[in-house]
Amino acid sequence: MRTQVAIIGGGPSGLLLSQLLHKAGIDTVVLERRSRDYVLSRVRAGVLEWGTVEMLREAGVGARMDAEGFPHDGTYLATRNQGFRIDFQERTGKKVMVYGQTEVTRDLYDAREAADGKVIHEAEGVTLHDAKSDAPFVTYMKDGTEHRIDCDYIAGCDGYHGPSRQSIPSTVLREFERVYPFGWLGVLSETPPVSEELIYAQHTRGFALCSMRNANLSRYYLQVPLSDKIDAWSDAAFWDELKRRIPEDAADSIITDKLIEKSIAPLRSYVAEPMTWGRLFLVGDAAHIVPPTGAKGLNLAVSDVHYLYHALVQHYAGDDEGIATYSDKALARVWKSERFSWSMTTMLHNFPERSAFEQKMQEAELDYLRMSDAAQTALAENYVGLPY
Amino acid sequence: MRTQVAIIGGGPSGLLLSQLLHKAGIDTVVLERRSRDYVLSRVRAGVLEWGTVEMLREAGVGARMDAEGFPHDGTYLATRNQGFRIDFQERTGKKVMVYGQTEVTRDLYDAREAADGKVIHEAEGVTLHDAKSDAPFVTYMKDGTEHRIDCDYIAGCDGYHGPSRQSIPSTVLREFERVYPFGWLGVLSETPPVSEELIYAQHTRGFALCSMRNANLSRYYLQVPLSDKIDAWSDAAFWDELKRRIPEDAADSIITDKLIEKSIAPLRSYVAEPMTWGRLFLVGDAAHIVPPTGAKGLNLAVSDVHYLYHALVQHYAGDDEGIATYSDKALARVWKSERFSWSMTTMLHNFPERSAFEQKMQEAELDYLRMSDAAQTALAENYVGLPY
Repeated sequence: MRTQVAIIGGGPSGLLLSQLLHKAGIDTVVLERRSRDYVLSRVRAGVLEWGTVEMLREAGVGARMDAEGFPHDGTYLATRNQGFRIDFQERTGKKVMVYGQTEVTRDLYDAREAADGKVIHEAEGVTLHDAKSDAPFVTYMKDGTEHRIDCDYIAGCDGYHGPSRQSIPSTVLREFERVYPFGWLGVLSETPPVSEELIYAQHTRGFALCSMRNANLSRYYLQVPLSDKIDAWSDAAFWDELKRRIPEDAADSIITDKLIEKSIAPLRSYVAEPMTWGRLFLVGDAAHIVPPTGAKGLNLAVSDVHYLYHALVQHYAGDDEGIATYSDKALARVWKSERFSWSMTTMLHNFPERSAFEQKMQEAELDYLRMSDAAQTALAENYVGLPY
Repeated sequence: MRTQVAIIGGGPSGLLLSQLLHKAGIDTVVLERRSRDYVLSRVRAGVLEWGTVEMLREAGVGARMDAEGFPHDGTYLATRNQGFRIDFQERTGKKVMVYGQTEVTRDLYDAREAADGKVIHEAEGVTLHDAKSDAPFVTYMKDGTEHRIDCDYIAGCDGYHGPSRQSIPSTVLREFERVYPFGWLGVLSETPPVSEELIYAQHTRGFALCSMRNANLSRYYLQVPLSDKIDAWSDAAFWDELKRRIPEDAADSIITDKLIEKSIAPLRSYVAEPMTWGRLFLVGDAAHIVPPTGAKGLNLAVSDVHYLYHALVQHYAGDDEGIATYSDKALARVWKSERFSWSMTTMLHNFPERSAFEQKMQEAELDYLRMSDAAQTALAENYVGLPY
């Protein structure tokens, strides 16, 4: 088989790139290791930057998001029961859209299917070949047979554990990492969200986040030690601890119920440089991970897609400037989002190793943010998304 | 002897408090351990917040500052030869005043002398007594005789090493500290400053600062390891290293000459809480130290003087509300300035213990600051001074 761009990974970034390139008349094949049902069962983030919203619309997959998503004009930050709201709309003229990543992926699958896009599921043993040559190709096993796709370019949209980044020699790759000394215990609850907007709560017992998927599906998180076992967290224990960490009025009004999903995820910052190796481009989690505080993961993958999509369109129009600069351009924005995610994580979580002075600095950061228009504007412009 | 307010320490904060209270008809005695010449020989910071400027004017000591000081509308931040300017005036409507602390102290001495203010130099063995009672007093030795001053209140303006804070039982005091793993090598040079405004330079070799006292007196600083010996730094070595760390155009145009002052100072953040103990009030360095990045030390002492001066005037008018809230009010602003000084220090210096990821975060902070109006406004509003 031959295609113009072989896309490794059928998550939202791979599918979005495929869909955008399709609309620009560029042929792609998407290879996904898992089944479609598996991909759609993964619970992921749900806050979209406005630039992400516009990219999805541009890809022709914005209709359901616009109908069912929840535009949010602001968010709450709570500290020691002194909550305050940051108004995105007032401070930046932009908002964010609450619409689950699972829904984005579903819309993209539907669009690729409607256009007869080639998305190959359960492609095993995907291997990248000759990415440094002018004739790269990808091989994979499907139904017991080896297949080969020759292509002009390979887009590695296959996440941290995928083969794309791992095919780049370690002598070429520079890696940067920060592992945080805690995780997030995340749950889903079929209850109305406690607040119309998100609540980010700093507390001496640890961070908590009240988020949501829709009007009857709440997503709540607690900072927990990495040593915690999920089975040790009963539903009652979760609700009790959440109520301790969020503002009193929220704790008093929250509707609790059986938890339908419960998992503990570690928090990590990670970046691999460069994001281009020959004819291979890394996109999203394949090149970088952010901690979830500030909801940048999916948005940053879409940012990479933005740069790569335009670079490829430019290439097939005869200009390789975008191809040459993809890694630098994508990374410039990656580092800014890494900075924001790291600073939000640092400002809102408890770090067991912190000195008393450092704890006071955390309080002072939040006190300053509470009283400063400029500091709130800086947070808001990052939250709604810096310009591409 | 009897006075209303005994002021321990004849540096700028003690003298300013004395002068302001004098103008309000409140009697003070200032006790200083050193000679006047010694106090005036100390080289200190020279960037005044606009609130400090206004306080000095209110005290009637602003004339020479207004005639000889240099109002600065902005400052330069340099990183990897990509300098940018932050315009204070444009972003906050305020500026700062470059006028040496030594000059401020001299003006205050002159004013106290003109008003026959009681400033007792070379007062040895100053001891605070009964600060928790209604009849506190201070004793000291002068010319071989012990003296006693009975008073209503004691203002501890005697710096980190003075007796005031040390007279508070350690069971009462909470202390917070951060010692930075480097120092500043500071020099004075009788040459025109390399730039009309300050240059804060981040560099992989370490931080550098180009500051000034007046049109023919430059003050330059280098981040150095604390293990460095001052004698090992020749004038030539200093100028060579400075030129390596500042932007090329500044390095090319800097005028070098014999250095007339050279010293290495450690960098430290320190806060003691509370700042009130009975009838004793701590002011300035007696209660808190900031690293010099951002020039908050003197300004924060003046901020304390502001709150204490108003509290004492209010007290003698029959209202003790300001006395009761002095510690809380002063500390609220102290912690904001501590935060700013710590964040400027963290953003601009090299920390030997930093991981590669943390170094990237430092670069990202500066890159973000370079492109964000909101982040520049936040820095500027702290630099010119948050409201009292």
